[in-house]
Amino acid sequence: MIRFESDYTQGAVPQILDALLKTNMEQTPGYGEDKYCLSAADKIRKELGRDDLAVHFLVGGTQTNFTFIASCLRPHEGVISASTGHINVHETGAVEATGHKILPIPSFDGKINAQQIEEMVVAHENDASFEHITKPKMVYLSMPTENGTIYSNSELEAIYDCCKRKNLILYIDGARLGYALMCKENDVAFSDLPNLCDAFYIGGTKVGALFGEALVIVNDRYKEDFRYIEKQKGAMLAKGRLLGLQFDTLFTDGLYFEISKHAMKLADKIRDAFKEKGIKLLYDSPTNQLFPMLTDEEMNKLKNDFSFSYWGKFDGLNAVRFCTSWATQESDVAALLKAINEL
Amino acid sequence: MIRFESDYTQGAVPQILDALLKTNMEQTPGYGEDKYCLSAADKIRKELGRDDLAVHFLVGGTQTNFTFIASCLRPHEGVISASTGHINVHETGAVEATGHKILPIPSFDGKINAQQIEEMVVAHENDASFEHITKPKMVYLSMPTENGTIYSNSELEAIYDCCKRKNLILYIDGARLGYALMCKENDVAFSDLPNLCDAFYIGGTKVGALFGEALVIVNDRYKEDFRYIEKQKGAMLAKGRLLGLQFDTLFTDGLYFEISKHAMKLADKIRDAFKEKGIKLLYDSPTNQLFPMLTDEEMNKLKNDFSFSYWGKFDGLNAVRFCTSWATQESDVAALLKAINEL
Amino acid sequence: MIRFESDYTQGAVPQILDALLKTNMEQTPGYGEDKYCLSAADKIRKELGRDDLAVHFLVGGTQTNFTFIASCLRPHEGVISASTGHINVHETGAVEATGHKILPIPSFDGKINAQQIEEMVVAHENDASFEHITKPKMVYLSMPTENGTIYSNSELEAIYDCCKRKNLILYIDGARLGYALMCKENDVAFSDLPNLCDAFYIGGTKVGALFGEALVIVNDRYKEDFRYIEKQKGAMLAKGRLLGLQFDTLFTDGLYFEISKHAMKLADKIRDAFKEKGIKLLYDSPTNQLFPMLTDEEMNKLKNDFSFSYWGKFDGLNAVRFCTSWATQESDVAALLKAINEL
Amino acid sequence: MIRFESDYTQGAVPQILDALLKTNMEQTPGYGEDKYCLSAADKIRKELGRDDLAVHFLVGGTQTNFTFIASCLRPHEGVISASTGHINVHETGAVEATGHKILPIPSFDGKINAQQIEEMVVAHENDASFEHITKPKMVYLSMPTENGTIYSNSELEAIYDCCKRKNLILYIDGARLGYALMCKENDVAFSDLPNLCDAFYIGGTKVGALFGEALVIVNDRYKEDFRYIEKQKGAMLAKGRLLGLQFDTLFTDGLYFEISKHAMKLADKIRDAFKEKGIKLLYDSPTNQLFPMLTDEEMNKLKNDFSFSYWGKFDGLNAVRFCTSWATQESDVAALLKAINEL
Repeated sequence: MIRFESDYTQGAVPQILDALLKTNMEQTPGYGEDKYCLSAADKIRKELGRDDLAVHFLVGGTQTNFTFIASCLRPHEGVISASTGHINVHETGAVEATGHKILPIPSFDGKINAQQIEEMVVAHENDASFEHITKPKMVYLSMPTENGTIYSNSELEAIYDCCKRKNLILYIDGARLGYALMCKENDVAFSDLPNLCDAFYIGGTKVGALFGEALVIVNDRYKEDFRYIEKQKGAMLAKGRLLGLQFDTLFTDGLYFEISKHAMKLADKIRDAFKEKGIKLLYDSPTNQLFPMLTDEEMNKLKNDFSFSYWGKFDGLNAVRFCTSWATQESDVAALLKAINEL
Repeated sequence: MIRFESDYTQGAVPQILDALLKTNMEQTPGYGEDKYCLSAADKIRKELGRDDLAVHFLVGGTQTNFTFIASCLRPHEGVISASTGHINVHETGAVEATGHKILPIPSFDGKINAQQIEEMVVAHENDASFEHITKPKMVYLSMPTENGTIYSNSELEAIYDCCKRKNLILYIDGARLGYALMCKENDVAFSDLPNLCDAFYIGGTKVGALFGEALVIVNDRYKEDFRYIEKQKGAMLAKGRLLGLQFDTLFTDGLYFEISKHAMKLADKIRDAFKEKGIKLLYDSPTNQLFPMLTDEEMNKLKNDFSFSYWGKFDGLNAVRFCTSWATQESDVAALLKAINEL
Repeated sequence: MIRFESDYTQGAVPQILDALLKTNMEQTPGYGEDKYCLSAADKIRKELGRDDLAVHFLVGGTQTNFTFIASCLRPHEGVISASTGHINVHETGAVEATGHKILPIPSFDGKINAQQIEEMVVAHENDASFEHITKPKMVYLSMPTENGTIYSNSELEAIYDCCKRKNLILYIDGARLGYALMCKENDVAFSDLPNLCDAFYIGGTKVGALFGEALVIVNDRYKEDFRYIEKQKGAMLAKGRLLGLQFDTLFTDGLYFEISKHAMKLADKIRDAFKEKGIKLLYDSPTNQLFPMLTDEEMNKLKNDFSFSYWGKFDGLNAVRFCTSWATQESDVAALLKAINEL
Repeated sequence: MIRFESDYTQGAVPQILDALLKTNMEQTPGYGEDKYCLSAADKIRKELGRDDLAVHFLVGGTQTNFTFIASCLRPHEGVISASTGHINVHETGAVEATGHKILPIPSFDGKINAQQIEEMVVAHENDASFEHITKPKMVYLSMPTENGTIYSNSELEAIYDCCKRKNLILYIDGARLGYALMCKENDVAFSDLPNLCDAFYIGGTKVGALFGEALVIVNDRYKEDFRYIEKQKGAMLAKGRLLGLQFDTLFTDGLYFEISKHAMKLADKIRDAFKEKGIKLLYDSPTNQLFPMLTDEEMNKLKNDFSFSYWGKFDGLNAVRFCTSWATQESDVAALLKAINEL
C-alpha cells in the first residue's frame, strides 16, 4: 500500500535527524531561548528581508491559529474566514473555545476575496444593531487553501488593502506554505509576505519537519507579550531547541524551498496523468493536493494499491484527495502514474 | 409618531406595577429564594401540569440562552441553530464567548426541521475526522422564530424524537412564547411543551413584564447546580423578588395568555390590511411580527406617522417589520389600518 | 422579625416607583439609548464635574465586574484583588469564567495598599520565568470593602500613582459607594473619583434602586466598544429605560447621597450601641455594615427578633453582620438599640 | 559551565533517537492512531496491570493539565491545588483561561493532605452562600511536587478516599513521575497508581523523551470524547507516531524506571554531599530536585563552574535548586561533589 492520503505521514528530512542526533546531549536553556531558536529566527528574517519581524516557534497548526487569534482579539471580535477554512471546519471549535466567533464567507474552492470581506464589514457598520453582532476584526486566509488553491500577489494586495482601510488584522495560515510558494502558477515571493499581511506562519509539520510551525508577526501592534500567551496555550515547548533546530535546518541553504519544489514536481506529474486520462479535478489546485473526480470503478481499482482520502460526492463522481510532499518517492509516483494510465 | 418597531418599547402590565408598589418595602431574602419566586414557579408548574420542573428566573434573553447553553455543554460540543437564530446573529457572539461553536443550518424563514438536524448529525458521525469537528450536542429553536414563524406540534415532535435518538439536548427560546401560543394557527398547548423539549424559556420582557425570562428545565440531567452557573453569569438578580413577582402576576388567572391574545388580535388586523391592499409579506408569520414588502413610496408615506424596522431589500421591495405587543393600543392600530388603506 | 442581614432586602425609593408608574406606557428605544439613560448619564457626569466620562448602566454588580474586566484584559493578564474581594470569593468564579486569573493579596479587613501592589508587580517583573506567570494588569478595589472599611483619599492616590507607574488599570467596585461617601470618616468626594481611578461603578442595587449599577469609565483607553461586550455578557437590558430612569431619579437633587446619609446615621447609632455595651467590632467599619462579636448568649437573644448574617468564629466569639440601608426604618433601629442595651 | 538548573536541558535517551531514525520514512496514519501509539499504550497498560485504562499522548505538561481539567469540569467547578502547584503558579493562568478557578491550599513544601481538602469542601457545603462560591470538584496533586517532595501510599489513599466521599476528581501531575517512583523513600508502586486516583500523567519531557506526556485516565466517567478536546486544545500531534514511539521505547524493558533510577542515584550523592558539608536543604526532597541553602560566598563559588536556579531568600540564606536527570553525567556530578566539598 502506497500512501498518498496526506502530507504528514512520514518523519523529517534527514538533515533534521542528523542535527537532532548531533546536538542531543547539548545542554540548552528551555522555552525557545536557546541559540538554535535565535539562529533559526535570524535566518527566517534574513530570507524575508526584514529585521523587525517577531518569529516564534510553535508545535502545531491548530495551536498556532488559536494562540495567535486569542492573542489579538477582544471578546466581541471575530474572524472572517472562508467557510471551508481549517479554523472553521477542522479544529473542533478551537477558536470558539477561546471565545471568538468565526464569521464564514461561503467558498467552494477555499478562497475569499477583498470585495466579499469589504461587503461583510460594511454590512456590519451599516447595521442599526451592530453592537448586537460580532465585530469583524481579523481575516484568516490560508496559502495554499485547504483545497490546494492559491492567492495571487494582486489578490493578497487587494485583501490587505481592504484590511488596512477597515482596521482588520490579516493573518495567513501557511501550513503548506512551501508548496504554494514553489508551485508554477505562484507569483508571491517569500519576501513579499511581510508586505502582504500582519502575521503568517510557515508550516513545518507538512514541509520537512517532524513537527513545528514558525509564526512571523509583522505588525508591531501584535507582538507584545506573545510569549505569555504562547505559554498559556501550551504552545511553548520546554525543549524549544527541537523547534529551533528544525527551522534552522530548513532555512539553511534554501532547503525548505528545495524540498517543496520536489513535492510540486511530483504533484504536477500526477495532475497531468489525471488530465491526460480525461479525469476532471474538483478544484483548480496548482499545489500538492489534487482532487480527481473518479467513477466508482476507477476509485476501486486505485484503492488496491494506493491510499488516498475520500472528499465527497460531486456530480455523481467521487472526489478524492491525493497529496505529495517533500517525502514522496519518485518510484511511488511512477507506480501511481502507471495505475492512472491503466484506468 | 406611533412606534411599531419592536415589542419591548413600553413598561409592564399595570398589575405588575401594582404588585411592585404594594410589596416595595417588604423585606425578602435575595437571589430568587423569596416567596414570590417560589409562588411563581409553582404557578408555572401547575399551568404546565408537571411538578418536577425546575424553574429559574433570569433577567434577559441573551443571558438565559448563554447561561443555559454553557451549563449543559462540554468544551467540544456545539449548538445546532437556524442560521437566522438569535444566538447566531444578535447576541454579539455570547455563546462563542462561553466557548461553544454554533452550527448553523441555512434557513430563510427561521425554521429548521428534523431531517436537517439528523443529516447534520449523521454527517458528523460518518466523517472520518469527526474528532476534528465540533460535536453537535444541542438544538436551539425559537418559538416563534425571529421571523415570526411557528413550529407545529408534529414538527416539534419530530425534532425532539430525532434529538432523543441522537443524544441531543433540545432547547427552545421562547422570548415571544405567548404570541406563538395564542396565534390562530398554533396547535401547541403550553402544557405540551415539557413533552416536546429538554428545556425552554417563557419570555417576559416582550410579553407583559418590565424584564425577566422564566427558564423551565424539564430533563433532570440538566438541573444540577444550575444556580451556581446562573450566579457566575451575572443572571441571578440580587432582589430576585422582582422577577418572582412579575411572573407570579403573569401566571395568575391566565394573564400571560390573555395579553398575548390581545397582541395577536391586533397583529391579525394589520396583516389583513396589508393583504387586502395586495402587499405581500416576506415570511408567512402568524404571530406578532409582520414583514410587509413595501415600495419606496409606500414606505415613505408610512414613515411620516409610524416607526418600524427596516429588514432588507427583497425582490426590489423594502421588507420592513411591524410588531404588536401586549401594550399596543387599539387606537394606534386603527390609525395604522387607515394609513395602509390609503396607500 | 426585623431584618438587618443585608442591604438589598427591600425595593426602591418611592420616587423611583413613581417614575416607573408615570412613564410605564411611554414608547422608548431599547438597549440604553433612550432619553432617560442619556439624562441620567448627564447628571452623573455633571455631579462628577467631567463631561468626558463614559457612563453605562448595567443590571448587577457581579455582571458589571466581569463585563468590565473582560473588556479590558488580554488572555494572560490578571486582576490584583484583596483575598477577601467580592470577585475573589462571592462571584462563583465569574472572572475566571471569562479567562482571567485573580491574583489575591492577603487581607483581613478588605483593604490592600500601594506597597503591596507594587511588590507584587516588581516580583513579577523580576521573576526569571515571568512569562510563565499571569501578568498583573488590573487592580480591583471596593469602596467600601466587603468588610465595611474605606480608603482615604491619600491611600487611593498612592494606589493610583502606583498603577500609573506600573501600567495597571485601577477599577473600583462601588456596590455600596453611597455609604462610603456619606460616612463620617470619609475624605473622598464623589467628584474626586475620576481623578483616582480608571473606572468605577456607582451601586444602585444596594443604594435606593430596584436594581442597577452605573459604570463610569474615565480612561479613554477602556471606552472603545464597551457596548458590544455589554451585550455579549447579557448586561444590556432590553428596556434600558428602567435603568436610566432609576439613576436619573437617584441623581436628581442629590437623592443618592441623602438616602446614603440616612443609612449612615442609623449605622452610627447601632455601632455606638454595641460599643457602649462593650461589644467589640471585628473590623473598623465606619459604613453601613457592622460586625459585632457576640457571645453565644448574646447572639441567641438577638436572634429572637432580628435577622443578621453569621460571619465566622473569631477569638471564641461569633462575628455577625448587621446592615443598614436607605430603607432601614428608624423604629426598627430603635427596637434593635433597645435589645442591644438589654444584652 | 555544567548545567544543573533544570531537568530538561538535553534531548532524549539514545534508544529514542535510534527509533526515530529507523522509522523516519515509514508512512503512518496521523493523530495518535498509528501502531506505535497503540503499542505504547498497551505496554503502559500492561505495566500498570490494568487493561481498561485510556492512554493518550500529549506534547507537554501545561497542555496536559489544562486539557484534562477542561475536559472534566463544568463552568462553576474549580480545582483544589497546593498554593505552590504548577497549575497555580507557572502556567500563565492556563486553567483559568479555560474558565476554571484554582482553589489554593497554602503549602510550604508542595504537599497538601486529605484533611485540608476535606475542610475546604465542608466549608463550601456549609456556607449559606455556597452557590456564590466556586464549587471544589477536582484535586490536583503532583508526584513529586514542585518542591521535590513525594506522597506516601497511605497519604494518597487518604486523599483519594476523601475525594470519593466528596465526589471530587483526583488528578496527579507526574511531570517527574519516574523520579518519585525510583527514589529510596517512595512506597508507591507504578501499578498502585490506577487505584489511587482518577487520572494521572507519566512525564516524558523530563524523563528521557524529547517531549511528550502520557495521560492515563482511570475512571470511565472521564474517558468519553477526550480526543475531541485534545484536538481542540492543540494537544493532538499530527505525527502522533513521534509520541507513541518515544513512550514505546521508554516502556520497553523498564527503560523509564532504569533511567529514573540513574537520576536518583546521582541526586542522592549530591544531597549527601551538601548534608555532609552541613548545608541545610530547604525542603525534605528525596527526588531529583535539591534545594540547598547557601551563603552568598558559597553560592558565588559554585556559580563559577555550575549553573543552577535561584529559588529565594530564606532565613538569610540563598535557596537554590540543583536538578539531576536521566541525562546527568557521572563526571559532572563528580566535579560538583568536589566543589561542594571544597566550599
